[in-house]
Amino acid sequence: MKPTKLTPLLLACLLGLGTELSAQSGSKKDEKVKLPDIPGYQTLKGDFHMHTVFSDGHVWPSFRLYEADRDGLDAISITEHIDYEGYPDEIRKDYNKSHQIATESAAKTNVLVIQGVEISPRVTPYHHNALFVKDANKLPADYMKDGKKKFVMKDSPTEKQLLAPFWEARKQGAFIFYNHPNYRWWDKDRYGLDLFSDLHRKMLEEGLLHGVEVVNSGIYNLEAHRMGEKYNLTMLANSDEHRDISYTYRHSHRPMTLVFVKERSEEGIREALQERRTAVYFDDYLVGREKEMDAFFKASLEVKAVKSTQRNVEPVIQIHMQNNSDIPYEVVCQSDLDFKNLPLGRVTLQPHETTTLTLTTLWQELPEVPLRFEVHNVLISPEKALVSELRVKVME
Amino acid sequence: MKPTKLTPLLLACLLGLGTELSAQSGSKKDEKVKLPDIPGYQTLKGDFHMHTVFSDGHVWPSFRLYEADRDGLDAISITEHIDYEGYPDEIRKDYNKSHQIATESAAKTNVLVIQGVEISPRVTPYHHNALFVKDANKLPADYMKDGKKKFVMKDSPTEKQLLAPFWEARKQGAFIFYNHPNYRWWDKDRYGLDLFSDLHRKMLEEGLLHGVEVVNSGIYNLEAHRMGEKYNLTMLANSDEHRDISYTYRHSHRPMTLVFVKERSEEGIREALQERRTAVYFDDYLVGREKEMDAFFKASLEVKAVKSTQRNVEPVIQIHMQNNSDIPYEVVCQSDLDFKNLPLGRVTLQPHETTTLTLTTLWQELPEVPLRFEVHNVLISPEKALVSELRVKVME
Amino acid sequence: MKPTKLTPLLLACLLGLGTELSAQSGSKKDEKVKLPDIPGYQTLKGDFHMHTVFSDGHVWPSFRLYEADRDGLDAISITEHIDYEGYPDEIRKDYNKSHQIATESAAKTNVLVIQGVEISPRVTPYHHNALFVKDANKLPADYMKDGKKKFVMKDSPTEKQLLAPFWEARKQGAFIFYNHPNYRWWDKDRYGLDLFSDLHRKMLEEGLLHGVEVVNSGIYNLEAHRMGEKYNLTMLANSDEHRDISYTYRHSHRPMTLVFVKERSEEGIREALQERRTAVYFDDYLVGREKEMDAFFKASLEVKAVKSTQRNVEPVIQIHMQNNSDIPYEVVCQSDLDFKNLPLGRVTLQPHETTTLTLTTLWQELPEVPLRFEVHNVLISPEKALVSELRVKVME
Amino acid sequence: MKPTKLTPLLLACLLGLGTELSAQSGSKKDEKVKLPDIPGYQTLKGDFHMHTVFSDGHVWPSFRLYEADRDGLDAISITEHIDYEGYPDEIRKDYNKSHQIATESAAKTNVLVIQGVEISPRVTPYHHNALFVKDANKLPADYMKDGKKKFVMKDSPTEKQLLAPFWEARKQGAFIFYNHPNYRWWDKDRYGLDLFSDLHRKMLEEGLLHGVEVVNSGIYNLEAHRMGEKYNLTMLANSDEHRDISYTYRHSHRPMTLVFVKERSEEGIREALQERRTAVYFDDYLVGREKEMDAFFKASLEVKAVKSTQRNVEPVIQIHMQNNSDIPYEVVCQSDLDFKNLPLGRVTLQPHETTTLTLTTLWQELPEVPLRFEVHNVLISPEKALVSELRVKVME
Repeated sequence: MKPTKLTPLLLACLLGLGTELSAQSGSKKDEKVKLPDIPGYQTLKGDFHMHTVFSDGHVWPSFRLYEADRDGLDAISITEHIDYEGYPDEIRKDYNKSHQIATESAAKTNVLVIQGVEISPRVTPYHHNALFVKDANKLPADYMKDGKKKFVMKDSPTEKQLLAPFWEARKQGAFIFYNHPNYRWWDKDRYGLDLFSDLHRKMLEEGLLHGVEVVNSGIYNLEAHRMGEKYNLTMLANSDEHRDISYTYRHSHRPMTLVFVKERSEEGIREALQERRTAVYFDDYLVGREKEMDAFFKASLEVKAVKSTQRNVEPVIQIHMQNNSDIPYEVVCQSDLDFKNLPLGRVTLQPHETTTLTLTTLWQELPEVPLRFEVHNVLISPEKALVSELRVKVME
Repeated sequence: MKPTKLTPLLLACLLGLGTELSAQSGSKKDEKVKLPDIPGYQTLKGDFHMHTVFSDGHVWPSFRLYEADRDGLDAISITEHIDYEGYPDEIRKDYNKSHQIATESAAKTNVLVIQGVEISPRVTPYHHNALFVKDANKLPADYMKDGKKKFVMKDSPTEKQLLAPFWEARKQGAFIFYNHPNYRWWDKDRYGLDLFSDLHRKMLEEGLLHGVEVVNSGIYNLEAHRMGEKYNLTMLANSDEHRDISYTYRHSHRPMTLVFVKERSEEGIREALQERRTAVYFDDYLVGREKEMDAFFKASLEVKAVKSTQRNVEPVIQIHMQNNSDIPYEVVCQSDLDFKNLPLGRVTLQPHETTTLTLTTLWQELPEVPLRFEVHNVLISPEKALVSELRVKVME
Repeated sequence: MKPTKLTPLLLACLLGLGTELSAQSGSKKDEKVKLPDIPGYQTLKGDFHMHTVFSDGHVWPSFRLYEADRDGLDAISITEHIDYEGYPDEIRKDYNKSHQIATESAAKTNVLVIQGVEISPRVTPYHHNALFVKDANKLPADYMKDGKKKFVMKDSPTEKQLLAPFWEARKQGAFIFYNHPNYRWWDKDRYGLDLFSDLHRKMLEEGLLHGVEVVNSGIYNLEAHRMGEKYNLTMLANSDEHRDISYTYRHSHRPMTLVFVKERSEEGIREALQERRTAVYFDDYLVGREKEMDAFFKASLEVKAVKSTQRNVEPVIQIHMQNNSDIPYEVVCQSDLDFKNLPLGRVTLQPHETTTLTLTTLWQELPEVPLRFEVHNVLISPEKALVSELRVKVME
Repeated sequence: MKPTKLTPLLLACLLGLGTELSAQSGSKKDEKVKLPDIPGYQTLKGDFHMHTVFSDGHVWPSFRLYEADRDGLDAISITEHIDYEGYPDEIRKDYNKSHQIATESAAKTNVLVIQGVEISPRVTPYHHNALFVKDANKLPADYMKDGKKKFVMKDSPTEKQLLAPFWEARKQGAFIFYNHPNYRWWDKDRYGLDLFSDLHRKMLEEGLLHGVEVVNSGIYNLEAHRMGEKYNLTMLANSDEHRDISYTYRHSHRPMTLVFVKERSEEGIREALQERRTAVYFDDYLVGREKEMDAFFKASLEVKAVKSTQRNVEPVIQIHMQNNSDIPYEVVCQSDLDFKNLPLGRVTLQPHETTTLTLTTLWQELPEVPLRFEVHNVLISPEKALVSELRVKVME
């Protein structure tokens, strides 16, 4: 037996070994989510809340990058709890480590990794993520019982203790958002009270609170949406994944925060988050502010109006609507003319298909058609679907 | 603000927090694999090759238990490389640790965890797993360069160095099998040589080799199957997963080693592996030895033969075949009588459905019907499908 | 060679020969449409407009009965044109013949056959069906050119000539409805005029017009719906099939007129049609009057409200809605409480499934819950979806 | 009211009225069957057995042309029974009429209509079709009871009476084939006798029998296949449809006789039928003679062999097999080399997809690869699947 001599080149190959073997059994690469940019901005897909073994998750940071890459994300943040260590005996405490490993893994991908942490007291103000922190180890978890590593708090933490990590995060330039606001189940005495407490109000005033998770782990949160609207917060959708995205979202895509950026960079994301240019994307729903949602819906479509005749004689206008996004828009169509064969004007614009609508009862020549679409799966407030208006030139 | 006082009961709940949130977004629990027992033995589903961050994987041992539980497995082994540390700076070297964590996680499940390791020199005899070891740290990786933690071997390891961990494993009572035998791609000078080398032959004689992976990471290995047959080795199918099973096998189930045990225990599995009572299950294929495969196929079916008439006059016999397994058996049917409307006798016995065959050209009374089925997706050798014979009593 | 002697019994069998052979190749009997009765009335499924070779269709009346039986219809009418003979050389003119053959074929089925005809001038008032006529040959087609058998009219038929068949139909006790009202494409000079002409108004006053086809050949007709509402007409949905239903509706069910009858008989259908107790069923849409539609929606559902807790602590109410119809109701839910995880309250109640909604923000004990559902695919007017209100008792 | 004056142009439109209305409700035109030509011959798709109201069917001949056109058939024959009139009171007896109407309807299509009849005594030799007859009325049904119009035979028809229509058909130049040979259910005394009787043998010798239906109404007939082989008959597959193809074959395509012609014409079809250049196509099966089946399989495929490496080092040959037919070939692959990851060499060549096989264990340079495929769903005899051999040049 003569062993092969390993060259440095071969050594480099060897590291990828396990991957290469297992990659063969998947049949075909599943498609990534396709969404349009909007005028003036690029649309980035982000997930800014997830965990690994460095707090209470069950995977390594490198794994989060595989997932993000597979899902075609533009940016993620691994947001370990600053007050929980899942494996203190096996893993040395260092709240920056998870981000460092993730950053290394990201080198082989096109994914931006943003440093973040989760501040998670078990009392008001409850859980928040701070993105863009620089040294997570500096955030004081003063509200915790000394020596306890797993969410065990002091009996009566003071407001000062509770806010300490927020102040430090702000000092480091963080963007801070309120996580899953209805997460309050053990807090019996609070029923009937506003989830947005006095302390939240204070944080808002002090610049310690900028956004809210409208969707966490795939679940739309009506109260969070109301909160986002009432207090003019940036709205986010995140997975908060502790295990494997591919199982949790095997019947859909993971929830994503769409960020409308001027440039594809960490700085670009920060600017967009601060300016509230985001949308929440989960299942087949979009939630956002009217301006961006209207632009997004319009950017998804190519619409043409063409003169035609029906049964060779009756003049009609055919509206061809090509949907270039992955979202099946469920719309109610309105016009001065009648839409043929559409009860209540209802139609679904299927992803990557062209839907043709026929306008009848055409009494006169029309140079352009005014169209109005109520888009039932695009929300611009907790009670209101997007209404988008178009004027389309009629071609011969 | 009045913080809630946390009781011990609540503390217990808190640990499951992340899990509970994310569990809500999956829609319905996917079904577990259903396979029959065979007479005298229980059929256990095992996966005896996988990795975590304790060697070159990307997940934590607890995660492997979630996966195994979701997949309805009866037994797994986490088989870290004894010659590779993926994260030496973050994780303290201890080759027993992965198994210990897994064992703790298993407490909440019905999964048996068997201690195992992978011995992975980059030269002949290449990779093997040793199951049922007791102290993985005692296996000497003498063939490795000192101080190197990632598959970097001595220039010319001696046979003694190479076999050292095998001898130790045997001492601890291990069951040892050859992993993915055609894994030899960098070893250019070996083309044309038998993958089952002189060293393997020696190991076999010395009791250092008992089985072979016929399927690794979903891929059927013809040479391994030939090897299993020629050297009378126990045949196994394992995932060798380094990341997430749910993604790799999103279009099928993971490969499994079926173990036909006398009792559902670690000892039961060891006895069955040693006695070669296994089958390899991947995609819709089974590979095994004739005796077990014939018993398994028969145990999957409930067959009834009933007298009937066709178009009210012509006597026929209807064979109702209920398939109680998840495997769609693709069979060629043969009988002294003719099967109606089955070109070449071909039919697929769909899982959990009853397929009815009609026998015609019935010249005389028959108390029972002899049936013969060639089952194309059950292999009893690399070149041979199972042929199963039944005699079925004909009911009025 | 000894020929078999044929007995009368065998003779009876022989007629079904072709059928019996061909019936074997279809795989499984497709399911019939399942719809609920409403309180006080049975729901019958009818199709009151179709053709055979006895006018301009391409099949024999017996075939229409096979189709109706396969589709689980309760009643059909074969409505041959009184002014068109497709095959004058092959088939002797007799406008009752088609119905007679159909009646004979119906004997083996559970389908009621109602005699009908289509009166089809190519000018206003255009096409109408008259159901429940007794002798179709008596209807004068005076507006036709003599000797012409295929829709060729006199140059300027008088109103008297045009109305003659309607008067005769009424004399025979007919129920008359306006077919596909926007069928006017060659009538260029009429653009801008009401499809419901002065002549129609006159017919309405004289008792010569009772209903209107809101759906013909699968197409929803907005103008016909408006007409039905404005003039208080019975609304119908019919196939107007000339060939094979199974091909035309291979992606859905055929359009049906639902008739809410006091008794399952020709008389029962007549009474219901006259009293306008119908609904129009096509694709996944229902169109009808509010009273019947509300009763129908409620009859489709079994709703239970049960107290529960979320994450063991937070009190919620679970609303279990079992949909016992084939219609996937697309509803927007409203309540004083918040629906969890339902953006805008939108949900689809899938056919023959139970959908569970969770009501949160429960501040006090509630003995019953008021619920309000806007049902987007049930129309009670051209511009309005059904809104149905329920009060459900809350169970422990 | 001013009636529109109808111009001749408009009159022409009116005839298509019903069609035009009903055509709108179908969603998308289903695809036609795609099959390759073979070297030297065009592949025509035929169905040479079906009925209308002119015997015991339930549709008009025009309808059979719609169906054939929709299904993309090249040729049909409407083969009315010469001894059955379904509607003697309504339809004047004329056994040429059905063909005449069909021929007229065919003018608008690309379908060839071949005149045919079914001769259907209820005793041996039972049913046969005669294609290419010129005057169907001249075929004497002497074996029938006088005045009886529905399959009622004389008590003991003589052989002469039974053969009379066959002799006349031959005089007219007919191609005659035995229909659904196992159709004998009421003929109790014949069990155990050969379905191919002495009379059939005589017909064969006298030139009164040329083919046999191996598939009738979708059902494969093992005895007919054996008969076709033993007596060297042309093999056919026909629908024998009495109602609607679209319903009977809603889960597959209708059975077809593939005819390999020198020219696309009635004469071309006659020549090919006489020379036995046919194949039987039903479900996913082909049945034919080895020569045509081998040519057909090869014509379906584009095969390329390309040198490659596996994991960057090991040399392999990749075989890319593009299947340009609608038939999912289920093959067992054999070669001197090993096929990677194909247990028993089994693979399905999906329609209109490229399947890539990898040949490993490549010990030396190969200028071309010999390949051998057993194609399990292409039968060249009742007991034998096609084995097709290819030598493919290996490209760099």
